[in-house]
Amino acid sequence: MEALKRKIEEEGVVLSDQVLKVDAFLNHQIDPLLMKKIGDEFAARFEKDGVTKIVTIESSGIAPAVMAGLQMGVPVVFARKHKSLTLTDNLLTSSVYSFTKQTESQIAVSGNHLSDQDRVLIIDDFLANGQAALGLVSIVQQAGASVAGLGIVIEKSFQPGREELVKLGYRVESLARIESLEKGKVSFVQEVRS
Amino acid sequence: MEALKRKIEEEGVVLSDQVLKVDAFLNHQIDPLLMKKIGDEFAARFEKDGVTKIVTIESSGIAPAVMAGLQMGVPVVFARKHKSLTLTDNLLTSSVYSFTKQTESQIAVSGNHLSDQDRVLIIDDFLANGQAALGLVSIVQQAGASVAGLGIVIEKSFQPGREELVKLGYRVESLARIESLEKGKVSFVQEVRS
Repeated sequence: MEALKRKIEEEGVVLSDQVLKVDAFLNHQIDPLLMKKIGDEFAARFEKDGVTKIVTIESSGIAPAVMAGLQMGVPVVFARKHKSLTLTDNLLTSSVYSFTKQTESQIAVSGNHLSDQDRVLIIDDFLANGQAALGLVSIVQQAGASVAGLGIVIEKSFQPGREELVKLGYRVESLARIESLEKGKVSFVQEVRS
Repeated sequence: MEALKRKIEEEGVVLSDQVLKVDAFLNHQIDPLLMKKIGDEFAARFEKDGVTKIVTIESSGIAPAVMAGLQMGVPVVFARKHKSLTLTDNLLTSSVYSFTKQTESQIAVSGNHLSDQDRVLIIDDFLANGQAALGLVSIVQQAGASVAGLGIVIEKSFQPGREELVKLGYRVESLARIESLEKGKVSFVQEVRS
């Protein structure tokens, strides 16, 4: 997605060979018009897949997911990373290991908002090692729902998340695929889209 | 806002005299079309106020704030409640006391995304005791920016947050004002809007 790649080039900050900071438009400050375009693009890529629900994870997945949900006409559910006062019953949970923080945490979705009739598009801001994505896949499966695919805003293609998900049979649509962050420079995977 | 009040009546769950659970469309599952209407309503109410930026707080403030930002054509910044790997420098912080959890926590916004030229609309999902709202006001003031007002999705008018903010001179626009949750029933404040 060209508008997103240009934004990453202009406003992304390469903090290391592993870490790209996009606090200017996605992870802290949010560009609503770009999010709308991202949501529309996810909707276009999954329009024939019978999606009934979008599942994402707080906090940075929410803006792109809600814009996709608006365009597709389906509800969004966001997994919580932290305990909530009102989210207590009928929980579907999964353990997610963070390589960067080197900590294991629990994510949770209420089973009241996912059913075995749902066909789910999973949306997240980043795909790196795939731990959060696999946690969301597990939660969708616990509900007996099916996974239509994964919509990722920014994929770090030099990390193994995409490969792992594809190997398990999931469709992954990433709007910007980063080949490398070496030497402080963002290089994108060259793609030919039909 | 009638569509919001109907949704609260149909899908809100009164957990106690103090707690309304709206996990079905705002705090866990999100109704994107309702969020769009909410964003449009905030945009209409503050259209003449020269707003340059919206500030909200993760996670449930993000969806209504981004929809308002889309309609108003301004960026959104969400305050973080939890430490972030990339959010480290030039932080504006504030202490927020939660009466329900009886804990004090820090919220943070990067000073890189707020300037003394900004005129800020603060948006949040709930207004109860006003602690989160006052924390956001403090952060906006630390940046030297001005507060155009506060846009609240659901106000618990039987708690003192609104009164406190109005006393300090801030304009508060709440789309649904709840007078009482007693006897398991949601009663709204009767309002005459010009």
